[in-house]
Amino acid sequence: MSDVKKYLAEFIGTAVLVLFGCGSAAIAGSTLGTLGIAMAFGLSIVAMAYVIGGISGCHINPAVSIAMLIDKRISVKDFAAYLVFQVLGAIAGIAVLAFLINSADLGGFHATGLGQNGFDAASAVGLNMVGALVVEIILTFVFVFTILGVTESEKYGAVAGIVIGLVLVFVHIMGIPLTGTSVNPARSLAPAIFIGGVALQQVWVFIVAPLIGGALAALVFRGFKMIQSQPEAKAKSKKT
Amino acid sequence: MSDVKKYLAEFIGTAVLVLFGCGSAAIAGSTLGTLGIAMAFGLSIVAMAYVIGGISGCHINPAVSIAMLIDKRISVKDFAAYLVFQVLGAIAGIAVLAFLINSADLGGFHATGLGQNGFDAASAVGLNMVGALVVEIILTFVFVFTILGVTESEKYGAVAGIVIGLVLVFVHIMGIPLTGTSVNPARSLAPAIFIGGVALQQVWVFIVAPLIGGALAALVFRGFKMIQSQPEAKAKSKKT
Amino acid sequence: MSDVKKYLAEFIGTAVLVLFGCGSAAIAGSTLGTLGIAMAFGLSIVAMAYVIGGISGCHINPAVSIAMLIDKRISVKDFAAYLVFQVLGAIAGIAVLAFLINSADLGGFHATGLGQNGFDAASAVGLNMVGALVVEIILTFVFVFTILGVTESEKYGAVAGIVIGLVLVFVHIMGIPLTGTSVNPARSLAPAIFIGGVALQQVWVFIVAPLIGGALAALVFRGFKMIQSQPEAKAKSKKT
Amino acid sequence: MSDVKKYLAEFIGTAVLVLFGCGSAAIAGSTLGTLGIAMAFGLSIVAMAYVIGGISGCHINPAVSIAMLIDKRISVKDFAAYLVFQVLGAIAGIAVLAFLINSADLGGFHATGLGQNGFDAASAVGLNMVGALVVEIILTFVFVFTILGVTESEKYGAVAGIVIGLVLVFVHIMGIPLTGTSVNPARSLAPAIFIGGVALQQVWVFIVAPLIGGALAALVFRGFKMIQSQPEAKAKSKKT
Repeated sequence: MSDVKKYLAEFIGTAVLVLFGCGSAAIAGSTLGTLGIAMAFGLSIVAMAYVIGGISGCHINPAVSIAMLIDKRISVKDFAAYLVFQVLGAIAGIAVLAFLINSADLGGFHATGLGQNGFDAASAVGLNMVGALVVEIILTFVFVFTILGVTESEKYGAVAGIVIGLVLVFVHIMGIPLTGTSVNPARSLAPAIFIGGVALQQVWVFIVAPLIGGALAALVFRGFKMIQSQPEAKAKSKKT
Repeated sequence: MSDVKKYLAEFIGTAVLVLFGCGSAAIAGSTLGTLGIAMAFGLSIVAMAYVIGGISGCHINPAVSIAMLIDKRISVKDFAAYLVFQVLGAIAGIAVLAFLINSADLGGFHATGLGQNGFDAASAVGLNMVGALVVEIILTFVFVFTILGVTESEKYGAVAGIVIGLVLVFVHIMGIPLTGTSVNPARSLAPAIFIGGVALQQVWVFIVAPLIGGALAALVFRGFKMIQSQPEAKAKSKKT
Repeated sequence: MSDVKKYLAEFIGTAVLVLFGCGSAAIAGSTLGTLGIAMAFGLSIVAMAYVIGGISGCHINPAVSIAMLIDKRISVKDFAAYLVFQVLGAIAGIAVLAFLINSADLGGFHATGLGQNGFDAASAVGLNMVGALVVEIILTFVFVFTILGVTESEKYGAVAGIVIGLVLVFVHIMGIPLTGTSVNPARSLAPAIFIGGVALQQVWVFIVAPLIGGALAALVFRGFKMIQSQPEAKAKSKKT
Repeated sequence: MSDVKKYLAEFIGTAVLVLFGCGSAAIAGSTLGTLGIAMAFGLSIVAMAYVIGGISGCHINPAVSIAMLIDKRISVKDFAAYLVFQVLGAIAGIAVLAFLINSADLGGFHATGLGQNGFDAASAVGLNMVGALVVEIILTFVFVFTILGVTESEKYGAVAGIVIGLVLVFVHIMGIPLTGTSVNPARSLAPAIFIGGVALQQVWVFIVAPLIGGALAALVFRGFKMIQSQPEAKAKSKKT
């Protein structure tokens, strides 16, 4: 019963992240600028962390969930279910966004786009595929590495959601002109399905690289814990 | 006696929200951009939460009050009185704004507007009425859902005002080009009364949709609590 | 001995506020925009609150000090000394700013200005004197009212500096196009002395109005406390 | 063993600061504006403080480390090692940035720059050398002074990383048009090595001035503690 609640929370959270983040890029991008779009994505975490954080942990991102799996904070079963509900949530968010764009004088969502990620001609600065893979691995590593740190103990409980949101703003600032910043396979898959074409052909990069970046963050994080001296390790072993 | 204090607090808080939020849109909109206006609205919560939060809860929004009523945190009597004082506060805020605009070389408040909400030709992207209803319900749902979560226990006490303010920034970022973002019937009613015409004809959307969104947030929030397992529910039953 | 430390802290804090706030407006205004200048002023509080807050309370503003005097949190002697050191700090900050501007290819500080406040032709939107008085009283009231609330008890201790900083951002967003936002007599007096002319003729508005706004905030704050019911009043009587 | 971990943390943290900060200036500068670049630098602290703060203290800046040495919070050995790993981290960050720029249609990193600091013709406003020295000493003083204050006791534990990040945003807002803001010798040395020419000739200013500013902050901070009355001093002597 409690499981249903967790999965539903991930569904809602991912829908909000994708609707507001991709929506800001698609609808308001030109007046918002890079910083404004970065804030739309980042603040979705602030919005969701304080209401669903206590229910599901507010991953709303398969790259976060894979790190939590590797760091043994969630079970394989939960990981699989989170993935499904995150993708379904992202699709729901994009469906609502497509409806809103089509309800306005914007020429339809194929004209505005749906905040999809891309490289080569689909990157604002023409970043190539290798560059896109590298940057998405790094962006996701930094994002997930911080999440692992700030949520490890109760110490930062009250501010953790703000910190994670600000770090999502952070990885969008440099990433938007490069790839649009994915760091989240669900956030990239949903618009690619709706837009098709190049977005769908390139989407594997934005699924593979964030998962690698998230997994890498978990491995480095565990590495740091292993070289920790005994008394410190004891003090820090109380997990959230 | 304590009641007078609560209602007066709601009056002052709503006046500040409306004066600064709508004022930034009307006076400084072109130099501020979407993000700046979003921050003016959002930071009004930060300003008021830490001074009147302990007095009235700092709803300063009928859509928040209806959710608090449904979640049984305020009485029917307080709900009704909050509504009245929020609307009066909003009218006071707009009256001061109109005075300020008329004290400057801006061609009067009919030229600048008073930050009123709108759809169709009154939406920056020409969003139609159904789209406006849908988006306002969603924006308000997200805003109020977070408020319910972050204020439920003492856990987030010190940061709750910052979180709620950031989430009000959040729902303005995507919403401003669509409808100007209401999520607050009092904030929409006051400028519509002063501006009249189309703003007044359309204002029902910005009264009805936020109230639906707020009520929906309370219902989903209660739903989540009901499917909560017993021991968890006990730990979380201490309300603010 | 401890007094010297407090006064020195106010000197340093006000110098930082004025150098960085007025400096951002004078040097970087055109690329920063209204939001960026607002953030420069606001973040000066975040910078100073966490280092001198524990020493002097980090007023760095006579309008805050007058409110603290009325709310009986500082003595008349400290109020007078704070005033002197705040004004001296502001003058030091402006002197450094003038030196920096004169060390660059900007045509001297008379060309860039020093972030001075103004009304009529000196207001970006041509706000008249009465409008300037009204808006500065309101801006200062909101700023100081929040400060009184957030610093009253230990409850918000760790976040108080961030909250006050964000509220100073807030009152600058709408105020910059109107008067440049003073809310602080020391911040306005120092550039007026260096610039002279109209700035010096108009500076009385930016000394009188913030002091009225700050005093009004303290009176309303005390009024709220007086109509507080007995048990509540007891719980809140522990002052910072 | 635990030492390796600390030094590695400083390496990673400085790499992230430099890659994202300088990267935002080089790649996205024109769409981000001064405030956006300032936020990229500042939020790198938020990202790193909550994951490596507990390991190395998250200095990621020799100017911070020199202050911590003077305030007797780290040993001479750690200071030296931190310096080496901070510089190596900065070089790694810039190497990745150069690779990313060269993977895009941006004409190579000599065309975009690598976010290097400068004065005279290399300053956006033509600030001269003496001005650059003065401003970098002041910017670093303010930045490090706040760090010393906010990290001195456990009192601000949870918000310290956010505060320090916001203050780094703060010192960038005014500093970017003047020198690009260094306040960090490692952040300046790495791009100068890659860019060469004027950047390398001028880099001594951005090594010397931040170290002076950081040392000065530590001295003033210790001065404040020395003139502290006995009972206060006792209450504050618990260091982080």
